[in-house]
Amino acid sequence: MSAPTPGQFPDSSPVDDKRPPFADMDVESFRHYGHAMIDWIATYLGDVERYPVLSQVKPGEVRAQFSQQAPEEPGSMDALLQQVQTAVLPGITHWNSPNFFAYFGASSSGPGILGELLTAALNTNGMLWKTSPAATEVEELTLDWLRQMLGLPDGFHGIITDTASMSSLLSIAVAREALNLDIRQQGMAGRSDVPRLRLYASEEAHSSIEKGAMALGLGQQGLRKIPTNAEYQMDDAALAAAIAEDSAAGWRPFYVAATIGTTSTTSIDPVPAIAAICRRFGLWLHIDGAYGGVAAIVPEFRHVLAGCEDADSIVVNPHKWLFTPIDCSAFYVRRPDLLRRAFSLVPDYLVTDEAEVTNYMDWGVQLGRRFRALKLWMVISYFGHRQLANAIAGHIRLGQQFADWVDASPRFERLAPAPFSTVCFRAHPQGIDDEAELAALNTGLMEAVNASGAAYLSHTKLRGVFALRLAIGNLRTTYRHVNQVWELLQTALDGLLPPVPPTV
Amino acid sequence: MSAPTPGQFPDSSPVDDKRPPFADMDVESFRHYGHAMIDWIATYLGDVERYPVLSQVKPGEVRAQFSQQAPEEPGSMDALLQQVQTAVLPGITHWNSPNFFAYFGASSSGPGILGELLTAALNTNGMLWKTSPAATEVEELTLDWLRQMLGLPDGFHGIITDTASMSSLLSIAVAREALNLDIRQQGMAGRSDVPRLRLYASEEAHSSIEKGAMALGLGQQGLRKIPTNAEYQMDDAALAAAIAEDSAAGWRPFYVAATIGTTSTTSIDPVPAIAAICRRFGLWLHIDGAYGGVAAIVPEFRHVLAGCEDADSIVVNPHKWLFTPIDCSAFYVRRPDLLRRAFSLVPDYLVTDEAEVTNYMDWGVQLGRRFRALKLWMVISYFGHRQLANAIAGHIRLGQQFADWVDASPRFERLAPAPFSTVCFRAHPQGIDDEAELAALNTGLMEAVNASGAAYLSHTKLRGVFALRLAIGNLRTTYRHVNQVWELLQTALDGLLPPVPPTV
Repeated sequence: MSAPTPGQFPDSSPVDDKRPPFADMDVESFRHYGHAMIDWIATYLGDVERYPVLSQVKPGEVRAQFSQQAPEEPGSMDALLQQVQTAVLPGITHWNSPNFFAYFGASSSGPGILGELLTAALNTNGMLWKTSPAATEVEELTLDWLRQMLGLPDGFHGIITDTASMSSLLSIAVAREALNLDIRQQGMAGRSDVPRLRLYASEEAHSSIEKGAMALGLGQQGLRKIPTNAEYQMDDAALAAAIAEDSAAGWRPFYVAATIGTTSTTSIDPVPAIAAICRRFGLWLHIDGAYGGVAAIVPEFRHVLAGCEDADSIVVNPHKWLFTPIDCSAFYVRRPDLLRRAFSLVPDYLVTDEAEVTNYMDWGVQLGRRFRALKLWMVISYFGHRQLANAIAGHIRLGQQFADWVDASPRFERLAPAPFSTVCFRAHPQGIDDEAELAALNTGLMEAVNASGAAYLSHTKLRGVFALRLAIGNLRTTYRHVNQVWELLQTALDGLLPPVPPTV
Repeated sequence: MSAPTPGQFPDSSPVDDKRPPFADMDVESFRHYGHAMIDWIATYLGDVERYPVLSQVKPGEVRAQFSQQAPEEPGSMDALLQQVQTAVLPGITHWNSPNFFAYFGASSSGPGILGELLTAALNTNGMLWKTSPAATEVEELTLDWLRQMLGLPDGFHGIITDTASMSSLLSIAVAREALNLDIRQQGMAGRSDVPRLRLYASEEAHSSIEKGAMALGLGQQGLRKIPTNAEYQMDDAALAAAIAEDSAAGWRPFYVAATIGTTSTTSIDPVPAIAAICRRFGLWLHIDGAYGGVAAIVPEFRHVLAGCEDADSIVVNPHKWLFTPIDCSAFYVRRPDLLRRAFSLVPDYLVTDEAEVTNYMDWGVQLGRRFRALKLWMVISYFGHRQLANAIAGHIRLGQQFADWVDASPRFERLAPAPFSTVCFRAHPQGIDDEAELAALNTGLMEAVNASGAAYLSHTKLRGVFALRLAIGNLRTTYRHVNQVWELLQTALDGLLPPVPPTV
């Protein structure tokens, strides 16, 4: 490979300081457009409920508004912001809207947004402690604060990952490493000395457990899904029986994921019983509290993490229910040494001589690490534990209010307990009892609500039954919004049902 | 799980709209502090070279400045910004400094920072097309623009991941899926019908290939490291021989990672020859162009991707050398259907009926997806291809200038070719030829430069030899900065060598 010669380049000017080949946006323009964008965001956040919650564009409509050829020449910031307004914004589903009730909420607060702005400006890579000590130490500090707020004991060590999917993958990988089968070195393929390895989670567990098993080479069959009881909680007796049965059949059970707040119904697995089973059989216990775990910051709801003090790892997601911009998932593990044993790999160019520091690159897959802790630090520091707990408690209260309305209505019914702020329900008017008809009616109801732009609900299936799901978790949602969506459901249902015949 | 009763909560006020349990920072405060932060960032970016590049704090110093107990009560934004200034900032290693020459640069431009700000404010999760159509379509559009800029043919489909580590992991996972061994379903553990699987990369390849193999259960032994020639490029004859040897020994070779710009020396593997070998043996060809691949946006440097049109997957990192805030890695694959086959898992609550759209959650591990494309769209749209190419060409020219100085100096020597903007070199004054002495001298030289705060260099080892590494990739770096670090190296070396005895 011969070195290129200067004459080859498009800009063949001699190298000197007076004519840099390239310059960033100048400082005055950055101020000008930065202020304009802050003002735009302030207005947006204030007005967000005026936008249709679910984007109403058709597939391809957003992309068609741009040149399909990469731009050769510079564009003006004014033109770009205009494109954001006219082409991007109509294609946004407004997760920050107080009328967003789908999936689990993920709303970004003012301090969280400003924290993310600062992260982008500092633009550090916290792969090693030395590559930005503050990135590592603020991450350690903030995750310890969150641990305290959750009521978890000392001895859980935190790392921020992008999503719970990655946190779950790490939990399975570290549990696999703990088996001492030398999978790090020898892998699993073609080895006769590695037994079939089995994970357990309830049939209501999040798909990321299964996806983690697929990625790590354990296979979908490696995950055995344990049935749930009438309240969608893992049947711990069935878990114990499955482990015993699998062991007898030559499987090596090694990992159980229990969920605090399953995705469909937010059910809570019986962690104390599951922890006892894990101890008895020597299995790794991972807690998926991505959504529901956050409720433990409310002192009166700390009980949702009962038993989790015995877990080996746990994930909660500040980007879900703690008003921190996506992405920010908090993964805790008791044995960071095992995590390092699974993942540490230090090439020559990254060898450092600091013995007593955390190099987070050793704790997972990703080498590059954005300073995600800054926004979480801002959120916790700005609001404080008590206010954040009040917010979560308020959401739970609103969820209970909605559940009460459903329970009291002759035309709706609840389909699962609602231990947090999420309610599974459906319209079930008198006289309609055919399941297919009910499913069609409720699908139509959901589509009518979502197409109105006034609210966005999602759905699930519970024992084969189509269920509507209303999840309250947005920091801007108040009683008025929950009341509005309830009235909207009534009105939309009226429109779907035949008119009531006049009494003669 | 019984539903909680309202009386349990800390704020037991009746639910109503007049007294929300929690409110975000009010709009006027957001404007005020947002403007203040924009002004702070504008000043910071203008002044960044006045900060010590490598943070000078000691382990624990940052954390010790905060309360170790989670804050119970709200904090004022003024106090928080003060803490950023006094406690966080001294712990920052300034990747945005023009004097940052370590690792590979990662600098954030004005439009990139503003794009990230907007992403945090919109806070969408683009897991499904419908959960924000613009997130998906702008990602498709922008990655297609980048593909065109790189000169890659049609037929490469892009997805943004956080880091090249994750892109590499995906590339190995999809190659494994392409083997049709039903690993998705059955996994690899305990299966006698799965052969030992082998990957290949040069001994200079990035550690993420090895880490990916570890995570995916293929093991460090699953990766065979191929020797390199005198210029640190993969020896393709050795690769072919290794594949043949392994096949004969019962391994199943399935994947080769070739690197465009290795981490230590930025060498370029002979991709056309490697591609021919992959075709001959039926192996997946992945290209790691995380750093060097970006150079192909310079028309005169398009040749660095020669042969890559035959690859199965390729990664380039806009967050490295394209002025986009970390994190943003562009992963391209020819067969997204295989990626979906490896990863797609659609639970009931995520079933949608749009047939013709991309649901990026099916393309990888992570379900949650931040709108990362927006910042890359801003960067490309604002600067345009020609200016970005000029920037890269300018960095390469500066690198050549530095290499020329090293080559011309009697006290320094170059240790590897410099095909891009990164130079491996060391001090080698006349009369010092002991390798241990040279290593100690150069370690001291690096420490002196880094401790000065005026520049930050990193190191590597080349065939056991300690090498200094100067990598130019920051958008603010100009001739003056490169010249300064060269002079700093001279002065620091003077300080480390015994004074020259006066000639008698």
